[in-house]
Amino acid sequence: MKVLGIVVEYNPFHNGHEYHLKKAKEIVNPDFTIAVMSGNFCQRGEPAIISKFARAEIALRSGIDVVFELPFVFAVQDAGGFAKGAIWILKSTNVVTDIVFGSESGDLDFLKKVAEVLIKQPEPFPVLMREELKKGFSFPNARKNALRRYFEFSGELNPLEVSKIEKSNDILGLEYVRSAMELNFKVNFHTVKRVGAEDRDEDFKGKFSSATAVRKQILAGNWDKVAESVPTVSYEIIKREIESGRGPVTLEDMEKMILSVLRLSDRQTLSRFYGFSEGIEKRFLDCSYKTTNLKDFFNCVKSKRFTLSKIRRLSLYAFFGITQEFLESCNQLGPQYLRILGFTEKGRKILSVIKKKANLPIITNCADYKKVIERCLKDEDKRFSISPDLFEKQILLDIKSTAIYNLLFTKQSERKGDEDFKATPTIV
Amino acid sequence: MKVLGIVVEYNPFHNGHEYHLKKAKEIVNPDFTIAVMSGNFCQRGEPAIISKFARAEIALRSGIDVVFELPFVFAVQDAGGFAKGAIWILKSTNVVTDIVFGSESGDLDFLKKVAEVLIKQPEPFPVLMREELKKGFSFPNARKNALRRYFEFSGELNPLEVSKIEKSNDILGLEYVRSAMELNFKVNFHTVKRVGAEDRDEDFKGKFSSATAVRKQILAGNWDKVAESVPTVSYEIIKREIESGRGPVTLEDMEKMILSVLRLSDRQTLSRFYGFSEGIEKRFLDCSYKTTNLKDFFNCVKSKRFTLSKIRRLSLYAFFGITQEFLESCNQLGPQYLRILGFTEKGRKILSVIKKKANLPIITNCADYKKVIERCLKDEDKRFSISPDLFEKQILLDIKSTAIYNLLFTKQSERKGDEDFKATPTIV
Repeated sequence: MKVLGIVVEYNPFHNGHEYHLKKAKEIVNPDFTIAVMSGNFCQRGEPAIISKFARAEIALRSGIDVVFELPFVFAVQDAGGFAKGAIWILKSTNVVTDIVFGSESGDLDFLKKVAEVLIKQPEPFPVLMREELKKGFSFPNARKNALRRYFEFSGELNPLEVSKIEKSNDILGLEYVRSAMELNFKVNFHTVKRVGAEDRDEDFKGKFSSATAVRKQILAGNWDKVAESVPTVSYEIIKREIESGRGPVTLEDMEKMILSVLRLSDRQTLSRFYGFSEGIEKRFLDCSYKTTNLKDFFNCVKSKRFTLSKIRRLSLYAFFGITQEFLESCNQLGPQYLRILGFTEKGRKILSVIKKKANLPIITNCADYKKVIERCLKDEDKRFSISPDLFEKQILLDIKSTAIYNLLFTKQSERKGDEDFKATPTIV
Repeated sequence: MKVLGIVVEYNPFHNGHEYHLKKAKEIVNPDFTIAVMSGNFCQRGEPAIISKFARAEIALRSGIDVVFELPFVFAVQDAGGFAKGAIWILKSTNVVTDIVFGSESGDLDFLKKVAEVLIKQPEPFPVLMREELKKGFSFPNARKNALRRYFEFSGELNPLEVSKIEKSNDILGLEYVRSAMELNFKVNFHTVKRVGAEDRDEDFKGKFSSATAVRKQILAGNWDKVAESVPTVSYEIIKREIESGRGPVTLEDMEKMILSVLRLSDRQTLSRFYGFSEGIEKRFLDCSYKTTNLKDFFNCVKSKRFTLSKIRRLSLYAFFGITQEFLESCNQLGPQYLRILGFTEKGRKILSVIKKKANLPIITNCADYKKVIERCLKDEDKRFSISPDLFEKQILLDIKSTAIYNLLFTKQSERKGDEDFKATPTIV
């Protein structure tokens, strides 16, 4: 049995995603396809434009059989943490045989070689890395420079190839490959060459526009262009959500929430949160007082070392109170559950297999999470090795992030906080 | 030298306030008039409709010589804490000889007698109080019942008179008298019979409308009615503020901020805040998840024991993180500084006297607060007995509350957080 696993955000599901899914299926010819999808908040440090429930529904109507939620603490991390959480989940199902990811270079051997260097840290790579960081480069840039210099030294690869990991899909792909190696996950990787616009390209490029460009068109209400760039199913569900007042949601909708939490904070409190060190906590505080809106705030904080995405993620860490200790435990012990956002009739079959074989407990309804923890603790065949405390913290963060997300809905009556308790998986 | 002290909110300054000030001056014939005014947040647990700087300016242009800010931690308390903070400040100036307050009953002897009972707690008053609380009455109602029964027993007063302390001005007046007794503040109290509408009367009553009714007209943009109910100076400054995008500010503008902070909180965190006991923390959490707006949230939490004002105050305590420990220390050790919001040319004279005589240091600019603390600690004649830690916590709360208040301004460019650092006293 072949089971294809993919990692997605679908923010929102567009023609490029549809193409990627079709190609991936052509390559693997799987019996089932499973997706790990970020929840209501995404890797860019922003809320998704429509809710995780709606995005899961689109995925299920577009050829995915089961959608698992990537817990917030992994979804809102840099490429390394994001990939680790997602690959960990795919591995834990114990059914995934193949993973396909989008790649600008399509050069899997290159990515595997780099991943190996990053894991094994052969000399003089660690020295080079320290040197580049000392020069004041951001982590991704320092790493790129150190790799280039390492390959100049070792001759294993052409150093010029290192420029490949400048593109967002290859950066993520590298982390997928690396996470699988680290987790000793024997899975077949494949790449699909990306079509159309790059992720960061905000300009509308017709049929194959980036998710960023599609979001811009949704926000501008240019429904013709949305229709041109996303499949019909996606278009209809996006429209339904927005017409019912459940979006479009943007980070700007959190402007006063985030600025108020920062203005109420202090250096000591901020410095407990992940990523707040080297005086960045003071800059966050000062900028929150000096500026009057999020855009100016981000520009005020931004520096060579701190990209916009990173600053957005740090802002969410401060807002949601994500401590360094918690995030690091999560990266060490991994996701603690498989939360099902939805499945198809066909997906039901693979789910019943996952239920028997998975190394993580399945959550179908958040309201039951305490029972799930109890069951894991009583589990006699020791299939699950969860940390009850971490489990609770991870799922409460998911629940709270939904409670916050819903406050951002345009229609007041949709702003209830308990959707995660009431929602059951979407069945298509 | 006679110095009149009054305690005000001026939210906003209306014809009733003008009348009260005129009468007070007729009674006392003072050389100077000093006001203690709540800052950007008021006793009802709401932000003021226009900022403390604008309200101070109106006061100074309307016959007040010096305006001190009542620190947030006292301004946003029940009548007892509010009065204690305000009277403490008036006492600490060491110049105030007379205090005038509005009163529905105008019966100062009655208020003094009741205050004495509350301070001395003669038997069987404490027993009666416990009995009434056990019946499930809110604190004010339990106290009224216990007083009635006490006077039935002692015969010192006609028990029917107790109904007087149902009216908001008499409730506050009682607390002013009691605080002065407790602080051993030998000051001459006088009352001015209230004219026109009662505080809680939301209906517009023409010339003498309540502050609540005036705020309603401001929010509705009925400028004719505003002009009818407030003096010209007040009208012009209110209009100026609103036209420049600095208001009108309402608690509803904090809706998402407050609901998000509550949804992110938990029982353990909430139970550290003042007033969160007896399971009210669970009700706050549950209601924040179940409801979609502040109005429904307050109704969800409300009960016989918890009035709307109290729930609003508790919401602000949770939002600003005001712990039981901090508030109780404040009530025990009092305000730690005299923050000047503004003064007139005439007021300059009494200020120079206060500077020499006061038992609390004067703050003219928040940016200097650390220097002021240092100076107090070096103070050789031991005039000031401040707690440096409490001083800092009190003033940081004032500063933060302004940073939050300004986020509520209608015009984005006015939403800077550092106004309290930059503002110097208004001089009229």
